[in-house]
Amino acid sequence: MSSDRIERGIELLEQFRKGGSQSVQKNYSEIAPDIAEYILGFIFGDLYARPGLDLKTKQTITITALAVLGNAKPQLAYHIENGLNIGLTREDIINSLIHIAGYAGFPVALNGIATAREVFDKLDGKNKN
Amino acid sequence: MSSDRIERGIELLEQFRKGGSQSVQKNYSEIAPDIAEYILGFIFGDLYARPGLDLKTKQTITITALAVLGNAKPQLAYHIENGLNIGLTREDIINSLIHIAGYAGFPVALNGIATAREVFDKLDGKNKN
Amino acid sequence: MSSDRIERGIELLEQFRKGGSQSVQKNYSEIAPDIAEYILGFIFGDLYARPGLDLKTKQTITITALAVLGNAKPQLAYHIENGLNIGLTREDIINSLIHIAGYAGFPVALNGIATAREVFDKLDGKNKN
Amino acid sequence: MSSDRIERGIELLEQFRKGGSQSVQKNYSEIAPDIAEYILGFIFGDLYARPGLDLKTKQTITITALAVLGNAKPQLAYHIENGLNIGLTREDIINSLIHIAGYAGFPVALNGIATAREVFDKLDGKNKN
Amino acid sequence: MSSDRIERGIELLEQFRKGGSQSVQKNYSEIAPDIAEYILGFIFGDLYARPGLDLKTKQTITITALAVLGNAKPQLAYHIENGLNIGLTREDIINSLIHIAGYAGFPVALNGIATAREVFDKLDGKNKN
Amino acid sequence: MSSDRIERGIELLEQFRKGGSQSVQKNYSEIAPDIAEYILGFIFGDLYARPGLDLKTKQTITITALAVLGNAKPQLAYHIENGLNIGLTREDIINSLIHIAGYAGFPVALNGIATAREVFDKLDGKNKN
Repeated sequence: MSSDRIERGIELLEQFRKGGSQSVQKNYSEIAPDIAEYILGFIFGDLYARPGLDLKTKQTITITALAVLGNAKPQLAYHIENGLNIGLTREDIINSLIHIAGYAGFPVALNGIATAREVFDKLDGKNKN
Repeated sequence: MSSDRIERGIELLEQFRKGGSQSVQKNYSEIAPDIAEYILGFIFGDLYARPGLDLKTKQTITITALAVLGNAKPQLAYHIENGLNIGLTREDIINSLIHIAGYAGFPVALNGIATAREVFDKLDGKNKN
Repeated sequence: MSSDRIERGIELLEQFRKGGSQSVQKNYSEIAPDIAEYILGFIFGDLYARPGLDLKTKQTITITALAVLGNAKPQLAYHIENGLNIGLTREDIINSLIHIAGYAGFPVALNGIATAREVFDKLDGKNKN
Repeated sequence: MSSDRIERGIELLEQFRKGGSQSVQKNYSEIAPDIAEYILGFIFGDLYARPGLDLKTKQTITITALAVLGNAKPQLAYHIENGLNIGLTREDIINSLIHIAGYAGFPVALNGIATAREVFDKLDGKNKN
Repeated sequence: MSSDRIERGIELLEQFRKGGSQSVQKNYSEIAPDIAEYILGFIFGDLYARPGLDLKTKQTITITALAVLGNAKPQLAYHIENGLNIGLTREDIINSLIHIAGYAGFPVALNGIATAREVFDKLDGKNKN
Repeated sequence: MSSDRIERGIELLEQFRKGGSQSVQKNYSEIAPDIAEYILGFIFGDLYARPGLDLKTKQTITITALAVLGNAKPQLAYHIENGLNIGLTREDIINSLIHIAGYAGFPVALNGIATAREVFDKLDGKNKN
């Protein structure tokens, strides 16, 4: 697993979280190593590394898409934390989730807010589990 | 149908398209007048008029949400045109739609791009129908 | 294709529309005859013929489910017409579609209302196509 | 947060569960107070307080919509309990969830029934967690 | 609950897992006995017992459909285990889940892989819960 | 746009339809050239070119996924035709679409069958439009 694309993807992901690319590779190394390559090469090396939109806008789009999907809670939590790491505020994220209530319905917005709350609580050392 | 909220919503929608609020009211005046009130009061008067995110960011979120839903083509076309009217570029919109390919899959991205293309062609006077 | 279940399903469907069961069989006779059997046996013979809820309530549930799915326009139009045939009013159907705006979002409600409008116009002899 | 709409929404929600409106406000008071206002004003003050359909029919529509969405378990449990509080029977609710198997597929129906079972068990003092 | 269809469905389900049909009946005997009948009669007696596609292909289709739905985790785990019982390999299942990343997006593929991992771990006696 | 991956993707797509890769590039050359690169590089060069599952199985998975999504009609028609080109029979495709009725509901199955019928009619020179 090595190419310019993947190197670019690793570099990009490291901007979001230090050690992030190694986590991805380790997590899928036994069960599905190809998917780790695609996450790094396609998601981060292609989509995130494309010119055009700044990183904050891309992250807002990712968070919106994941919240609207409605069945992507682990990914939504991961990308909310990534968003905070590159400069989105907690208010930005909550405001984005409130805005989608009109388009995807209240349950999608409320479940997105619940996931954001869990991320915020974890970061504040308030573990609810 | 009159209240501060609805007045605020009408004003907001008029920023996107002149005569927009009248179109909404006329379109639903016979079959479902309440829904016109909710579009103006809740979507534009509550969600769009909230402080926090600027209008371009809100419009990017709306476009993303509608594209990810996948079954909201008339609304997506309407909001792509609204986005262009308040300063999003065609490139911004295409870039947003490309970015969601990783999260909602290629069909959602490709169908979003096809809808954007129809809007652009209409605005350019190239009617494909 | 004959059994008590299917006979019961045919009888049930005929309450909604005269000749309805023959249409189903004819429509799928070449490409997928089994699916016609399942529509008559499972959808109408099992689900619709079950005791418990009256026919109007069942039809309201069907219309809600189809509208929320968002990608079932031909089926939604069909079942809106069926609903009118067994005593739901146009207002009942529009009221149901408005109510889901809060749960499935406005696009789903608006597209449902648009489909209802097409059915009503067809029945009124106003063909918009 | 005070207006005729919101007062009407509070009153409506209190018909479903005593203290319900205070719970909503408290739950979102820190993270997203606006969403509490929208739940009370739009969901309960607008949609539920509209004339046209009786409360039981509206609640059947809500339960159907939430079950079909498939990713709204907390909201489905909440509204199943609300339904019981205004006179829907357990059988009514199970019958509604069975009926959607044909339209949204068996997993949606089975997961809806599983959520109903958890609500019933909680009410019966059989806590499975 | 007895008919040729249901007998055929019971026989079919027993090919996937010994005692499987009894589990289904027992699980729903109190809350919704009809749904057990429909699972055995329609899902296994009609769909799985139809000629045309071999059982492995049908099971690959079921696993794909459940993964793409995204909100059917208990059913996906159940059918992954059924797939292993009739000869699909763990690699086959992981390969199927990877393939859908392009069509339904990465979250759906990653959550499907996570469910497969839980099934594999359970079978290996590594219980993560 | 040139790399081993993309070359591999072009070669793969050409197995499905002669000139297919050029169509993709031409279709998106102005509006979104990157998406053409991702279709060739990721969808065909990565996912379809992976070892593990044979091409017919992958195509059955693609068709199932697109049908279940429910809002991917152009892609479903395209991939049904691709499936026929590499040896799936019309019966195989219809059988796959019937099987998903139990998991994603009847509307998804019926709309999938309707799309298959349009593809078959086009290939038979019976143009219904």
